[in-house]
Amino acid sequence: MHNKDKTCWNCPAAILNGNVEFRACGQSVSDIRNKITEEGLLIECARRPELGVFEPSITFEQCPEWRETKYGYMLKDMRVVILGIDGYLGWTLALKLAKIGCKVSGIDNYLRRKAVTEKNSKSVVPIAYMEKRIKTAKEVHGVEINFREIDLLNREELSSFLEETKPETIIHYGEIPSAPYSMVDAEHAIKTQYNNTLGTLGVLFLIKEHCPEASLIKLGTMGEYGTPLTGRPIFEGLFPADAVISWQGQEWSMGGELTPRDPASFYHVSKVQDTFNVYEACKYWWLRSYDIMQGVIFGVHTEEVSVHKDLRTRLDVDEWFGTVINRFVSQAVLGIPLTVYGSGEQIRGYLSLEDAMECMTRLIASPPEPGQYDVVNQLSQLYKVKELAEIVAKVGSQNHGLMVKIQRVENPRVEADEHPFLVVSKKLREDHGYDPKTPLELEVDRMFSLLLQPEIQERLESIREAVFPQTWWNGNHKTSMTLEIYEHGTREIIGYRPTLVTRSESHQTKPTIVNESEPYQTQVQDIKYGDET
Amino acid sequence: MHNKDKTCWNCPAAILNGNVEFRACGQSVSDIRNKITEEGLLIECARRPELGVFEPSITFEQCPEWRETKYGYMLKDMRVVILGIDGYLGWTLALKLAKIGCKVSGIDNYLRRKAVTEKNSKSVVPIAYMEKRIKTAKEVHGVEINFREIDLLNREELSSFLEETKPETIIHYGEIPSAPYSMVDAEHAIKTQYNNTLGTLGVLFLIKEHCPEASLIKLGTMGEYGTPLTGRPIFEGLFPADAVISWQGQEWSMGGELTPRDPASFYHVSKVQDTFNVYEACKYWWLRSYDIMQGVIFGVHTEEVSVHKDLRTRLDVDEWFGTVINRFVSQAVLGIPLTVYGSGEQIRGYLSLEDAMECMTRLIASPPEPGQYDVVNQLSQLYKVKELAEIVAKVGSQNHGLMVKIQRVENPRVEADEHPFLVVSKKLREDHGYDPKTPLELEVDRMFSLLLQPEIQERLESIREAVFPQTWWNGNHKTSMTLEIYEHGTREIIGYRPTLVTRSESHQTKPTIVNESEPYQTQVQDIKYGDET
Repeated sequence: MHNKDKTCWNCPAAILNGNVEFRACGQSVSDIRNKITEEGLLIECARRPELGVFEPSITFEQCPEWRETKYGYMLKDMRVVILGIDGYLGWTLALKLAKIGCKVSGIDNYLRRKAVTEKNSKSVVPIAYMEKRIKTAKEVHGVEINFREIDLLNREELSSFLEETKPETIIHYGEIPSAPYSMVDAEHAIKTQYNNTLGTLGVLFLIKEHCPEASLIKLGTMGEYGTPLTGRPIFEGLFPADAVISWQGQEWSMGGELTPRDPASFYHVSKVQDTFNVYEACKYWWLRSYDIMQGVIFGVHTEEVSVHKDLRTRLDVDEWFGTVINRFVSQAVLGIPLTVYGSGEQIRGYLSLEDAMECMTRLIASPPEPGQYDVVNQLSQLYKVKELAEIVAKVGSQNHGLMVKIQRVENPRVEADEHPFLVVSKKLREDHGYDPKTPLELEVDRMFSLLLQPEIQERLESIREAVFPQTWWNGNHKTSMTLEIYEHGTREIIGYRPTLVTRSESHQTKPTIVNESEPYQTQVQDIKYGDET
Repeated sequence: MHNKDKTCWNCPAAILNGNVEFRACGQSVSDIRNKITEEGLLIECARRPELGVFEPSITFEQCPEWRETKYGYMLKDMRVVILGIDGYLGWTLALKLAKIGCKVSGIDNYLRRKAVTEKNSKSVVPIAYMEKRIKTAKEVHGVEINFREIDLLNREELSSFLEETKPETIIHYGEIPSAPYSMVDAEHAIKTQYNNTLGTLGVLFLIKEHCPEASLIKLGTMGEYGTPLTGRPIFEGLFPADAVISWQGQEWSMGGELTPRDPASFYHVSKVQDTFNVYEACKYWWLRSYDIMQGVIFGVHTEEVSVHKDLRTRLDVDEWFGTVINRFVSQAVLGIPLTVYGSGEQIRGYLSLEDAMECMTRLIASPPEPGQYDVVNQLSQLYKVKELAEIVAKVGSQNHGLMVKIQRVENPRVEADEHPFLVVSKKLREDHGYDPKTPLELEVDRMFSLLLQPEIQERLESIREAVFPQTWWNGNHKTSMTLEIYEHGTREIIGYRPTLVTRSESHQTKPTIVNESEPYQTQVQDIKYGDET
């Protein structure tokens, strides 16, 4: 088990109020580290008070409070609070965690349900209200989920909730997750940053007050990084120790510093703003956090949600909240040629809903250390948008008998059309035992099977207007013009070849331009789709 | 004149609605640049409509709308809007700009006056209300200043104001400028980011709507950067073209990317959050901005404010809003040993009020290009806090017969006590003709002369309690304990030696540790205090 040798040092049950007061001021980090080295460090255990005061050296393997799971050793009955538990990811994760024995609580203010309505859209997969979801979860999976309707910005109510639930892990999904929504106008931009940035800042103060030992697992986005045109590596949030900057004949290590960010919308800016608030809270107060730079999510399936229709998670396919693959599948079902923006050469990281849940569970299992702000690039694979359209069109036509075309439309966004993309995503794989499980084609096939059900097809039809891009980054609101329509399988994919570095031994990191005569293939280092082991 | 060869391309009167629509989407920057190169670029002039449509090639020297000033060529009767015109910097700049012929308008909601009252403090220099200030300015300087009481967050009122005033330059001083204020509790942290970050975001949308050609000059802070412990250079916001990152045997230019930030409080975080909003607005909408990373300001004097008591600008010396030198001088007058936090080895950049106004005027004179987001490190000199205490104590005792002692107190902040500091500040000097004018000792002497006036000394006495540090970064509120008290002139200053790079030819950029046997001196490249030329 990859995390068997971690100790109390990483355990949220360890109360660090022995001989070192981490959350004091007037002492530098190096002073604290020296003190720990020289005098040792003493803790108490919130779960085993009978141990008294001791050194934090019990390993997860040794400790009876930790038990082996397929995601690593995990704290027994871990108390997890999910902010945004009604959402696409929040609900799916709640079921998964409850099923493996966590005590799951969560809040939501149904902001997402309301914002989708504002777009004249709805989840194309019908979803039950929270009360019914929870009842069905109890019947089908035998689990208890503790829900309260609370707005993240209502710190008084959230404060009481945290006091009651005493979380050991907090999953922060409670944000508005849409780039186009944030670009509609000033009101939407401000609402996004108000909800996301100030909401998160308030949460940090509450964690400090109620549960400073809890691990905060916060959803960011790969879109914080932008697409550096030099092709320089997109590291995992912080420069690695062996990254060196040179200038005018001198060199300095950049190790540990935040890498440059170049967010792609005011929504993405809000995520960068969060990054800095969380980073600072870890520095000032010794909170601990994984900031998840997640690729674009797609799909509908996990074992827990697929088993009963009242347990399904939402699926948005409108231009505000629908991510690209989810939109493509719905367009294929609707008979709309798949809308590729601009050249379609944009490269992004992707992962299925199921893989995302697997990653999150592994991160929950192995909390960071006190004071540790760590960033994880959470994605399974890199694709060009054009390539995704090809795959969706192929699965739709071959497996489901649909006639699927592809159209290039005017790009309403301001983004680089063509760019190299060299992404590092090693931590989940090397430190947390993650291997992507769901090939894109498999999940796309599952999506077609679900979306072609008559009831869902009917819902899809009813929101047809909401699927097409209309929100322009320059503030206009108009339907993007079609530039061309083509048959899938008729275009070669050329240009920059993305590179994903997943293991330390991969030294081939040079992005290359694919020669038109070579067949195009995404260059992947050591990616394998594994069984659960 | 340093900016005589700039052209319409940099002029806010040039309306870029000829053959290239900069603010459109669906086109990449490289496409736009290609189009400009191949087809040329056509503009109209808002000030000289008789020119029709033409290429933006008239130089400032040639254009009758631009006139020579000692700050460079400047647009005649330039329409400037100052956000936060009632503040320490806002009022001072308003007078200076009005005096040299700008048409100055401004807004303020008196937030600063109210926040200082909340701290049981007040400006120790008595200041008139805006109506009286404006009346006196008219009498003394013969200038008109157009003021309206508006909250930055009230976008409706601000929108009308911008529509009326049609600014060619917007100076954004409308933020809460205090690190300790932002660390008081969740309410103060949230209020700071709400006012600063969301206020700025709203302003960007209004500029886009009403005056996209205007130059936005936005106050940031050197505190966005932190104090990198490797001693790597603190560049001017963006990596220079010759900065190269190497990793695993490969190299990439970092040129043009934002450098890492490491803000020192939730207030400093708000400035970083602004950085990203402004940066993105320049990218999406081709707005243009100088983001000013300003050092710590001190002083009371400019020609325009010193001439009449109703024209004086505010001076805060409380622990929330008083910057360090201003606090030291007031402590010396009050007979409180100067409060050095922790070791006092913290190095920061500083500049006098007068120098800051000079810098701002020069930046206003030479606007950035459309789409250009540029960052300027605005400071005159680097000092250690301990060193500042020595200088203030020396001037106070030698010139004003005061008994001044120095005390080290517990540091209520979370910051590195000792760190190298290699700062680049070339743009103002090389591109904008700036030379620092006010030596620290001179301005400190002026401050003593003012603060020792009986009326001001009495005001100082009345806020004595507010001067001592009480706001701790860990959320505590208690008076910092004194660690030691010593006489000035009795301590050697040792440790890291700061380096300021002000000219390209300065290649000596290696920070060095001063040997205890050598006399300590800040290492400065080519700094000179010049006369006005």
